[in-house]
This record gives sequence, C-alpha cells and structure tokens, in this order.
Amino acid sequence: MGSENGCTMEENDELWEQLRYEAKCDADAELALASYLYATILVHRTMEQALAFHLGNKLSSSTLSNTLLYNLVVDVFMEDPEIRDAIRIDMRAVREKDPACVSYCHCMLNFKGFLACQAHRVAHRLWSQGRIPLALAIQSRISEVFAMDIHPAAKIGKGVLFDHGTGIVIGETASIGNNVSILHHVTLGGTGKQGGDRHPKIGNGVLIGAGATILGNIKIGEGAKIGAGAVVLIDVPPRTTAVGNPARLVGGRRNPTQLTETPSETMDHTSFISEWSDYVI
Amino acid sequence: MGSENGCTMEENDELWEQLRYEAKCDADAELALASYLYATILVHRTMEQALAFHLGNKLSSSTLSNTLLYNLVVDVFMEDPEIRDAIRIDMRAVREKDPACVSYCHCMLNFKGFLACQAHRVAHRLWSQGRIPLALAIQSRISEVFAMDIHPAAKIGKGVLFDHGTGIVIGETASIGNNVSILHHVTLGGTGKQGGDRHPKIGNGVLIGAGATILGNIKIGEGAKIGAGAVVLIDVPPRTTAVGNPARLVGGRRNPTQLTETPSETMDHTSFISEWSDYVI
Amino acid sequence: MGSENGCTMEENDELWEQLRYEAKCDADAELALASYLYATILVHRTMEQALAFHLGNKLSSSTLSNTLLYNLVVDVFMEDPEIRDAIRIDMRAVREKDPACVSYCHCMLNFKGFLACQAHRVAHRLWSQGRIPLALAIQSRISEVFAMDIHPAAKIGKGVLFDHGTGIVIGETASIGNNVSILHHVTLGGTGKQGGDRHPKIGNGVLIGAGATILGNIKIGEGAKIGAGAVVLIDVPPRTTAVGNPARLVGGRRNPTQLTETPSETMDHTSFISEWSDYVI
Amino acid sequence: MGSENGCTMEENDELWEQLRYEAKCDADAELALASYLYATILVHRTMEQALAFHLGNKLSSSTLSNTLLYNLVVDVFMEDPEIRDAIRIDMRAVREKDPACVSYCHCMLNFKGFLACQAHRVAHRLWSQGRIPLALAIQSRISEVFAMDIHPAAKIGKGVLFDHGTGIVIGETASIGNNVSILHHVTLGGTGKQGGDRHPKIGNGVLIGAGATILGNIKIGEGAKIGAGAVVLIDVPPRTTAVGNPARLVGGRRNPTQLTETPSETMDHTSFISEWSDYVI
Amino acid sequence: MGSENGCTMEENDELWEQLRYEAKCDADAELALASYLYATILVHRTMEQALAFHLGNKLSSSTLSNTLLYNLVVDVFMEDPEIRDAIRIDMRAVREKDPACVSYCHCMLNFKGFLACQAHRVAHRLWSQGRIPLALAIQSRISEVFAMDIHPAAKIGKGVLFDHGTGIVIGETASIGNNVSILHHVTLGGTGKQGGDRHPKIGNGVLIGAGATILGNIKIGEGAKIGAGAVVLIDVPPRTTAVGNPARLVGGRRNPTQLTETPSETMDHTSFISEWSDYVI
Amino acid sequence: MGSENGCTMEENDELWEQLRYEAKCDADAELALASYLYATILVHRTMEQALAFHLGNKLSSSTLSNTLLYNLVVDVFMEDPEIRDAIRIDMRAVREKDPACVSYCHCMLNFKGFLACQAHRVAHRLWSQGRIPLALAIQSRISEVFAMDIHPAAKIGKGVLFDHGTGIVIGETASIGNNVSILHHVTLGGTGKQGGDRHPKIGNGVLIGAGATILGNIKIGEGAKIGAGAVVLIDVPPRTTAVGNPARLVGGRRNPTQLTETPSETMDHTSFISEWSDYVI
Repeated sequence: MGSENGCTMEENDELWEQLRYEAKCDADAELALASYLYATILVHRTMEQALAFHLGNKLSSSTLSNTLLYNLVVDVFMEDPEIRDAIRIDMRAVREKDPACVSYCHCMLNFKGFLACQAHRVAHRLWSQGRIPLALAIQSRISEVFAMDIHPAAKIGKGVLFDHGTGIVIGETASIGNNVSILHHVTLGGTGKQGGDRHPKIGNGVLIGAGATILGNIKIGEGAKIGAGAVVLIDVPPRTTAVGNPARLVGGRRNPTQLTETPSETMDHTSFISEWSDYVI
Repeated sequence: MGSENGCTMEENDELWEQLRYEAKCDADAELALASYLYATILVHRTMEQALAFHLGNKLSSSTLSNTLLYNLVVDVFMEDPEIRDAIRIDMRAVREKDPACVSYCHCMLNFKGFLACQAHRVAHRLWSQGRIPLALAIQSRISEVFAMDIHPAAKIGKGVLFDHGTGIVIGETASIGNNVSILHHVTLGGTGKQGGDRHPKIGNGVLIGAGATILGNIKIGEGAKIGAGAVVLIDVPPRTTAVGNPARLVGGRRNPTQLTETPSETMDHTSFISEWSDYVI
Repeated sequence: MGSENGCTMEENDELWEQLRYEAKCDADAELALASYLYATILVHRTMEQALAFHLGNKLSSSTLSNTLLYNLVVDVFMEDPEIRDAIRIDMRAVREKDPACVSYCHCMLNFKGFLACQAHRVAHRLWSQGRIPLALAIQSRISEVFAMDIHPAAKIGKGVLFDHGTGIVIGETASIGNNVSILHHVTLGGTGKQGGDRHPKIGNGVLIGAGATILGNIKIGEGAKIGAGAVVLIDVPPRTTAVGNPARLVGGRRNPTQLTETPSETMDHTSFISEWSDYVI
Repeated sequence: MGSENGCTMEENDELWEQLRYEAKCDADAELALASYLYATILVHRTMEQALAFHLGNKLSSSTLSNTLLYNLVVDVFMEDPEIRDAIRIDMRAVREKDPACVSYCHCMLNFKGFLACQAHRVAHRLWSQGRIPLALAIQSRISEVFAMDIHPAAKIGKGVLFDHGTGIVIGETASIGNNVSILHHVTLGGTGKQGGDRHPKIGNGVLIGAGATILGNIKIGEGAKIGAGAVVLIDVPPRTTAVGNPARLVGGRRNPTQLTETPSETMDHTSFISEWSDYVI
Repeated sequence: MGSENGCTMEENDELWEQLRYEAKCDADAELALASYLYATILVHRTMEQALAFHLGNKLSSSTLSNTLLYNLVVDVFMEDPEIRDAIRIDMRAVREKDPACVSYCHCMLNFKGFLACQAHRVAHRLWSQGRIPLALAIQSRISEVFAMDIHPAAKIGKGVLFDHGTGIVIGETASIGNNVSILHHVTLGGTGKQGGDRHPKIGNGVLIGAGATILGNIKIGEGAKIGAGAVVLIDVPPRTTAVGNPARLVGGRRNPTQLTETPSETMDHTSFISEWSDYVI
Repeated sequence: MGSENGCTMEENDELWEQLRYEAKCDADAELALASYLYATILVHRTMEQALAFHLGNKLSSSTLSNTLLYNLVVDVFMEDPEIRDAIRIDMRAVREKDPACVSYCHCMLNFKGFLACQAHRVAHRLWSQGRIPLALAIQSRISEVFAMDIHPAAKIGKGVLFDHGTGIVIGETASIGNNVSILHHVTLGGTGKQGGDRHPKIGNGVLIGAGATILGNIKIGEGAKIGAGAVVLIDVPPRTTAVGNPARLVGGRRNPTQLTETPSETMDHTSFISEWSDYVI
C-alpha cells in the first residue's frame, strides 16, 4: 500500500526490488494471479508491509481482525531491525538451498515454513516484552494455519530454512542457530511435565531430516546432520551424522565420520548411504 | 453471550469462573486481545456456550454456517452431562501436565488438541445417535482445521491430553482410556481394507510419544509408555516401555522394566535413556 | 449449479448419479446438513462442477477469489479428459479400499487426500502448460488447507488413495504409479540443494505405510510394501516389503519374501508381523 | 436448526407450518435456492429461530458476530410473547395487503420492511430494558443494511406493513398504531435540537403514501390517509386525507371528505384523484 | 478469468475493449486499485463474465453463494442476446448522459443504477421463465445492496439511465421504454391491495426528476419530462412537462408547452424555470 | 491498535479521551458490545486510527481489502490536518445538534451521516490529488454502504450534520459551507448532461429539511432554511425560509420573513407553520 505510516523504505533494498520485479513479471504473464500479486506484493512499499499484510490475512479469523494483526506485525517489524534483517537472510536461504524455490516472490507468498518463521519472530518479540497472551494467540494461529507449532519463547537464528513446514513442533526452551535447515515433521521436544530448560539446542549449520524427533535439553553440535526419522535423545557432536531410531552416529560413537561440508547448505540428506555397507535392504 | 436459551449456568462452576478471571486479566493487560477475549470468553455465560462459539467459528466454512454449528454443539453439550464433565477434566489435565500451558484460558482458546478432542466428543455423540453424515462432516472439518483426523466412532476417555495435536490420526475402532497423553503425529491406525474391529485399544494412563505409530487391533496396557517414533504392531504389556522401529520393550520382552509412575502424568518421555547402555550415539 | 456454461453432462455418469443419490438421501435424513449438501453437490449438474465448487471454496482466501478458482478448475477439468477419468477412478479406489469411507459423497466432500489429489491434478496441468506461478500458488493453498505438500510437477497415476492425507510431502520429480495407496505423513523427498531428477518413483500397486520417508531418486518396485515409519534410501524390488529405520527387506536383501497380492489393494500393513519371529516386544 | 435450546415449538403454529411448506415447495422447484432455503428456513424448528438466524446474518459485520446477534435475538423473542405475536400479525398483514407478496416465505426472507421492523422490535425491547448502547448499535445496523432508520425508542404496533422500506426514518418519540401501512421514504421526524416528545403519533389503520414527510409532535388520526409526497406539520383528523406540499385536507379543512374504509387495508393511494376537479395536468 | 466455459468473446466487442483499456490505464496509474481492477475487469475475457463476477460478489450473502450467483448470471447472459445488447446500450447511455461518468469502467464498477438494472434484467428473465422464488430472491438482494427495489416482472427498455439509483421503487406491472432517464428516489408505484395491471407505463425518452412519485396504471407519454418531487396520478401527454405536488402541466392542461428535444437525452431538469414567471421564491 | 506507525497521538485530544471513556463505560455496562467496542474504539490509540479502522471495515468488499482501505484512510488523515480538525468539529456538531445522539462514541460508531462524510473527506482529498479512479471507487462504496452518494469533488465545510443520511445525493460542483445541517433524502443536484459548474452552493449555517431537492448552480444564502420536501430551483436569499414544491419564500419573495437564529443550530424545521395562516389542513 502506498502508506506513509511507519514503514519507511529501506535504502537500497535490493531483495525487495527483486521480489517486486518477479511479482510484476508473474502478474504480466499470468492474468489469473495479477489481482493476487498486486494485493499481496505490488501495492506495498516495503517488504515489511507486504509481509505484514500477508501474515495479517492468513492469521486472522472471525474473532481476530486482519487489520489489527497487520498493525501489530508492522509495528514489531518497525521496532526491531534484527527481525527485518532476519526476514531477508531467511529468504535468501530458502531461495538458495531449496531447489523447488523458483523466486523470492515464490518464497514470500507460498512457503509455509518461511511465513510461520517470520510470524514466530513477531510472537517471540512480543513474548520477550512480556505480552504473553498475545504471543500465545499468535502461536496458536500459526499452528492452525501452517501446522507448525513453535513456542513463542523458542529462539531461532537467521538464515533458517523450514522446508515444507507441516508438522514441525518446537518447544519453549529450544534454540536454533544460524543457517539451520529443518525438514517437515521435525520435533524439538521436551519431556516431563516440569518446566525449566528442557528442549534441544541446535547449533549453527545443522541439517535435520524429515520426521526426526529430538527430545530433551540436549545439544546438536554445529554442522551436524540428523537423518530422516531419527529419534535423538543424547547430544550429537559437531559435524557428525546421527541416524535411526534410536539414533546412532554414522561411523560409531567413538570415531564418527566427520562431515566436511555444512549439511544445512548442501541439503544432502543421504550421502551417508554409502557408509551403510551392511544396510540390509 | 448473555443467552437464556439452554445453557444453564452450572452451579459453582469454579473452573469456568477461574477461566473467566484469567480472560479478564488478559483483556485488561493486553488491549490488542481484549476484543478477542470478550468475543470468545467473556460474553458467554457458561463454559459450554463459550466452547460452542469457539468451535462453531473454527469449524465453519463458506458452506457450513457457524451459527448452525454453534447450535449443534450447544445442543450436544446440553444433552450429555458426560461430555460436560469430560471438557473440564480434559482442561485440568492439559493445565496440569503440559508445562507450556499457562492458564485454562490458554488451553481453551489456543490448544488444537483440546479443541479437536471436544469437537470429536460432539461428533462421537452424533455418530452414536446414527447421525452418520453429520458426524463425518465434523470429522472432516476437524481434520482440515486442526490437522487431527479422529474417526467419530473412536472412543476417548476423560483427562486426555493431545499435546500439539498436529498429525494425530485415530481410527474407527480405536479406544483411548482415561488420563492418556498423546503427543503429535501419533497414529492409532488400522490395517487392511476390511472393516471390523481393527484399531488399537489404549489403556488408562498410557503415554504415547511423538510420531509413534500403533497399528492393528492390539492392546497398549495400562500405564505403558510408547517411545517417540516407535512403530508398534503387537500388544504392549501394562507399565512397560516400548521404543524403536520396530518397537521392542525396554528391558526385553521377557522381563521388561516396570514403570512405577504413571507415564501420562509424569510426561517423562526419555527417562529410559539410561537403560540404553549400548546406545551407540 | 444449473449452469450451461461448459460442463456438459457426461453421458451415463453413473458415479455422479450414485453420488447425487447418496447426497439426496443424506439431505433427507439429516436436516442440519441439507443446506450444505445442496450447495456442494445437489445444485450442480456434473461431478466436475461440484468438485470445482468445493475446491474453489476450500482453496480460496481473502486475496484469492473462490469464483476465480472455480472457473480455473472447471476449465482444466473441461480441457483434460484424463483428469475427468482420474477423478472417478480415484473416487472408486477410496470407496473400495478405505473401510472408513461410507459413500462416494463422503469421499467427495470429506476426504482431504482425495480433494488435495484432484487439486494437484489441476496444478499439475497448469505446470505442464508453463503456468508456473499459478501452479505454485495452488500448491501452496493445498499445503495450507489440507496439510499436503505436493509439488505441481509431480506425476500421479490413477486410482490413488491418499488416506488421511495430513503431512504428505511429494517432491518435484517424484512419480506415483496407478493404484498406489499412501498413508499420512509419507514423504517422497529429495536430497541436496541441486535440482534435477531427485525424488522417488513409486511403481503401480505399491502400499506406503504411515510416516514412511522415501528419499532420493530411487525406485519402489511394482506391488512393493513400505512399512509404517520406514526410512527408505535405496531401491525396493517389486513385490517385496521394506520396514524399519533404516529400512530393510523382510526376509532379507537376497531372498526377500515375495508378496502374492497387491498391497495397495489389500491395504494390509501388518501381515509381515508373523515374519518377525525375533521381534522383541 | 434442530436446537433444543430455548425456542420451544409454539403449539399449532400454523403460520410457521405454512411458511415451511412454502419453503419446501420452493426448494423442490428451484434447485438454485435449495441450499439457501434449507439454511434460512427448513433447518430451523421455530419461526423465532429462523428469523433470528436470518437477522443475525444480515445485521452482522466483521466486528459484530452473527452468532452473538442470533443469540441476542432469540433471547428477546423467547422473553417477550408480545413480539412473537407481532411477528405473525405483521407477516399476515404483509401477505394480505401487499399484492406483490406471494407467500409468507417470501415475506420472511425478502421483505426489508418486515425484517427491519422485527429487528426494531428487538432493539426496542433492549432500549426499554436500559440497554441503550446495544439498542443503538442494532438501529445503526438496520439503517445500514435495510436503509431504514428507526429509533429504538419508537413504538410500533402490530400488523404494520412497511412496503419497500427504503428510506423510512422514524424518530425517537414517534408511535405507530396497529394495522398501519407505511410506504417507502416516509419520515416521522422531529424538529429542533431539543429532546422531549417531538415526533408524530400515527393512529390505527393509517395509510402513509410514499415519500410523505410528517414532522413534529402531531397526531395523524385513526384511519387517516396521507398522500404520497405530502408534507404534514399539523394534526390530521381521523378518516381524512391529507395531500400536497404543504399538505391540505381533501375536501377542505372544515368539511374534509370522510373515508369509509380503512386506508391501510385497502392500500388505495389514489382514489381521491376524482376530487381534484381543478387538477391542472 | 481465462475461462473457456460459455462466455465466448463477442466478435469485435469494442465497448469491452475500451473498458478494459480504461481499466488497464487506471491500474497502471493507481496502484491501490490495481488488485481490484484485475479481479473485477482485467482477468475476465468478456463483458458478461466481468459483470457476472461483479454482481455475484455484490449480491452474495453468507447464505447465498457468490459462485452460484456468478453461474446463474453468466447463464442468463449467455442465453439471452437481448440482455447482452441491453448491457452495452445502457452503458453507452450512462457514459453519454451523465457528466459525472468518466469512463465505461467507472460505470461498470461504480454505478449502482447500472448494476441494479443489469441484475434486474437477470431477475426479469428468471421471472419470465417461471422461476419466481429465485427472481424474488435476487430482487431482494438488489434492494438491500443497491437500495433499488425493482419488481422482477417490471419491463425495462434499453438505454436506460438510473442516475444515483438510491431509493428507486418500480412496481410489478410497470414498464419503462427505451432511452429513459430516471433520477434517484423515483417511485413507479401501484395503489390498492388488488393485483392486476396497476403501475405506470413510461414512454420512450422520458426524463423523471429526483424524488418524483408516479402512481397507478397511467401513461407518461413519449418524451415527457417529470419534474423533481412531482406527484403524478394522471396520464402525462407526450413531450410535456409535469411539475409540482400535485403535478400540473407546465403551460397548463390545455396547451402545455411542447418540448422539442428529448428530455432524457438533454437531462435538462430545470429549463422550465423561465416559464414560472410567478414563481414566488 | 497499539500502532506506532504514523498516527501520533494528538496532544490533549480531549474529544478522543471523552469518546474512549464513553466506550469504556458502554463496554463495562453491556457485555454483548464489549468485543465490538474494544475492536472499534478501545484498542486504537488515536481517533484517526479508530475511524480508519471502522471505515476500512465498512467500505471493504470481497474485492477491496479492508486493510488496504485502513492504510489509505490513515495516510490521508495523517497528511491533512484540516481533515483531522473537521472530524472533531463534525462530531461535536452531531453531538450538540442531534438530540438523538447520546455520546461521541454513538456518533462515531453508528451515524451513517458522520461516517459517510468523513469517508467523503478522504475521497475528496484523493480527487484533489488527481487520484480520480480511487476517489470514485470510494464514492461508490459510500453510496452502497451508507446510501449517500456524494461526488468526491464536492466541497464540504466543517461542523456539518448529515442527519440519518439515507438518500442524500450531492453533485460534483456542489459546495456546502460550515455548520450546515442536512436531513436525509436531500439532493444537491445538477441538471443537463453538460459538465461544468452545475450544482448548488450552500451557505454557512443553512438547514435543509428532509427530502428537499435543490437543483442547479444556485445559491442558498447563509443561514437560510429549506423546508422538508421543498423543490428549489432559484437562489434563496440569506436568512430566509423556502418551502413547498415548487418552493416559495415564507413571507413572500419581496419581503421574506427574516430568520434571527441560525437554523442549522436550532434544527427548527417547523416554526414557520404559524406563518401559514391559510394553511388548509
């Protein structure tokens, strides 16, 4: 929207310019989407307004106004330069790491994982400011709309890719480092009915495969890889690969195979197959 | 709503009084939620009306009227004291067992698992009365809105906690005892294309970890614990722990380790780790 | 709707006649659903119109018009006799294989898996025509509404049953044969951040159990069975059963037990239990 | 709706039975309206529920819930037998006096004048109970939705026909007797900025033609007729006809022509034409 | 919409091409309207689809589907070339006669009088086909949404301008010729509670000023002019002017001033002022 | 909303403080309105935000986003101190002159005339900036929602009361002075199909009664009074009263009775009655 109120144009916001360009090309090429693209992207002056508009519409309900949510989200974006930064780094991460992502515009409009993550960033800030009921209401709407349940207290770094998104559950005291890639159905869960620090800490550059369940206040070391469907209950050292249910380290506990590339960047889930010389199938 | 029609105030409904008190505090503290809290909680005279209003709005669609659903749900609540009882016992269970639950109001408004369970109770009663198409339509809306697919014929006890909720699937002939705790992505599934009794029976006090898949007409004994990601195809004895894919009993089939506490109450998913002396990771 | 524009009545569309008959019976028996059934089924002249109306409403949002989507879907259905055929074969498959499905009408209105699959067929055709942004927008709405993320480029045969649907993820270069049955939480995923052919190919008649994760450009042979929770990274031969995480063939890699019936038809997930003589539980 | 809560079936409510019968015939004859008729009429058990549902939907907005309004209206209807009586007498009056009214169902669903009048009856009762802001909110919605602005304090008798409805304005201290017929654009207005009793009192059986403006605390005597476009600022005696701007009595002030039939029943607006021997046209 | 179903492009539909061109210019010049213009005009292939989409949205309600209405309206437009013709002639008339109309696009999107008239044409055809309840439901929605109450049986010619529209009431047996211009608040009413032919017949080229009330089965002759606020109960000869309440002919009954131009084209409401040498003001 | 973006709190905005106080009292006294009052008034920090939110919701449609309208309106309010001033002066005028107005909150939420006038101020500014299509779109929505058709080019002073609002039509080149009071159904119309300056100019302090029609580029002098239903085609001198159809000056053209009070303030419509010694009624 051509709004003056608040969202001042970032100087030289190249990502936003690129995204708008993509949206314009799509609108020109596909008449059936033009109205949608103008409403969600092209009418807005800044990335923050566009994203707040999109999230406000998606998270609204018959008892929770979209305009109120829009204002809330815009306000948080305007107050917090870290979030504005994170939005762009996340978007670049999705675009770079996910071969199914064809454009920034595609990420912005269509990726549940990206949208839920940015909505979480808003809820997290509200939580940090002590606005607990509001943060929890947003968490709840994210869970209903995107099927991703991220506790507003959870800490999430920048450059994070939530691929597909459906079924992700992240607990209250979990933290996720930078440049982490997390596939769908991943749980960073607690255990027990006691409060306190009870959820996993995920290091930078970690890759967590689809359906992996990581439980308890444990550390997944920097650059580690968690295989699809793994159930992890104990710390995983940096740059190692854990697979299976219960999870074991590829190469064994004492001398696990060391990864030389950052798995969240290669997005390579399966190169450890060759390790399984005795794989029965 | 200040409605006289039907929902008479329960005498001394302390839980509802507490919930209203929480909602009032939240509304006073957080202006951005006040409208929402008045609409969903504070305007209503009884727990049943408030819950029916919330469910009616969530389950409605452009072809299924929210007011019609509200009336349906209120009617079922008014006819069936067992459901009115179960709502409160479930709510207390969530509040007590889930450390992320900060208030009854939080549970009522935000917990997909709680909401889907109460909506299922309505569908189940309709199913029992032979109103099959209506029960199935409600099941379908629960599945779309909360991503929980519970067949209306399934029997669910009281004091049940569905934590996070996303991805839960419960089949037609499944039954769940009292005080059971079920994490997200849990399947109580059947097998085969034949009808008949084909789904699991879950005993009282069982805890089922995230992503566990339990298939077939088998029994999970009272107070048993099913580990996250376990795939269970055979009966599990009472007060034992099954983990892994395929699942095995912790301590072995013949002399499995006996649990001394009710796992659904401790919500302790991972204390069996110490048992895994040979756990490779 | 009594519309003349486009959707000509299929000659002798017995399935549609049967479905309408069921809807009429339900409307007569259950007053609370009559409005819904007239709006979604009985007012329409053809299966295609009814389905387009239902999908248009479900996939619409505050920025994406339901009428526009209705027209898009009707147009695709009218242009492509293969899709018209597939709709009916899928519906018969659901009705026949899923004992919880009580009628064609039930399938049409309530089955997320069926609805998401038909919406995907529309997205797939648009993708094939080069209408990429539109196909991706539809994918995104399917993912939000049905919690099923199917890349529009993925190829899906006829007679496919997606049971429960929640959490299914199907990648860009995946293909699925005819008469395949896929339970919820199944992933046909890729690996790595490179594009190219990187997803599984599922043969005809395969049955994939709940929560199975199949990764990479591998083949699941015709009539194979993948157990619930299996994590499969290597080809599975035809008519064999793979279970576990990591998956292994029942009977061993060299002489796996041969299946004599098509598993997607028997929907038998668990008959291999007897094979597990040493199953520990 | 098959609701038990509150709206007990009136014994032998023949009007409602007739109305339902008409709705059923219409639904059978016109498929395009069947969903609408089931939702608005046929699913409801009583006239009061159906009317409350229809008004709740029409008067709702994005900030005023339809279900809340439904409950409010049902409650008022249940508390006040006078209103329940008036609804039916009004409906019979419309059906009898308006040749364009083809059925009770037609009146109930389509007549703005009838709907606005019944909504006013609700607002009036709330006003009488001191619920001023709520009464005024309903007045406002009636004015926006039906373009009829009736102050909630205004008193309206039974058997009143508001034909077409658009543009009617009725002030705070106005009263309208029984069996009155009022065409569109009629004003019963006050004058001056002082409060107090300042609006017209309309006697039983009066007919007020389209666009008539009646201002001030004056009396329109029983059975009088006010011509279309008349501007009336002084009392009109019973059974006389006032026409013109400014209004004059047909036949003269001293010996006005006496009406022998009740004009609101004959709905005869123009029989006085013959009187105008010097009518210039 | 890029729909193939039914609305084939009229050959050389210059008006539609012009209208689209205007909409494109507006969308390019005013970003805040672009989404709206693409949704309502630019995505559609034919005038008929665009108009049906616009009317479907405006006339829909929570119980009356916009897509259903769209289909109904498109079907009627496709069946009846007379209506397709009338749409264009009306639009040209508005554009030409109303100096406030800046473009065809402006007329199509914003003119209540134009939109209500085209919706009436649909209702009129349905009425003629015996689809009475549907025609009456559309009349009712037109009355609520546009504040114009036109009985579906009323006959309306081509090239008709309803300026402003609010408050127009046209009775069942009224007829309106071609090239008539009717200002707001005009009533073509009946009288009495008897059915039968009881409403005015308006000749070609008549101009009826704001607030005029014309009652009974009388004739307003071709090219006559009815002054604002006139109350007309007797025939008005062709090419004469009637003013006042009660109306009188300008120039007197015996030798009324003859109009030499068609008043509905000049839209000259006040040139007769010079005639009123004794006008008191 | 607690928004920082743009709408800075006016220093010492006593009117807004008073309005909020009234809304809080109403919310406390009437539970059924609390949600509505928090959403529309209490959650907002400034009068401008609250009004923009209310107008955005009312003027939105399925193709015109409420959030977009909110932003548009807020932007205009922020840019133009004259409008911010006018809002408050209008509100005070309504509160003071209309005895039916019980509070500022009542005016803000419920008065169509007030809301339409402020929306017009927005449209007028957009028109002045050359944003013609946007201004016309807003005019159209005002006309549909409030049944008041005010051309965006029309100039309206401050302290203007549009009482009831329904049916008001104000043409392109009309202007209205300060402290004018205009009842419903009033037309300030043009004549002829030529453009140019063709609508009335209304002086300060004028009172225009219900249903008055004023046509052409004429002047209504300062402090004049136009009687209900008057049809005025010639200038009216200051502080005189015109009544009737056609209108004449009370007291005669040459020596009309002089008004000693400002009629728009006394709102006295009928004190001239005593003048009509020969009034026939």
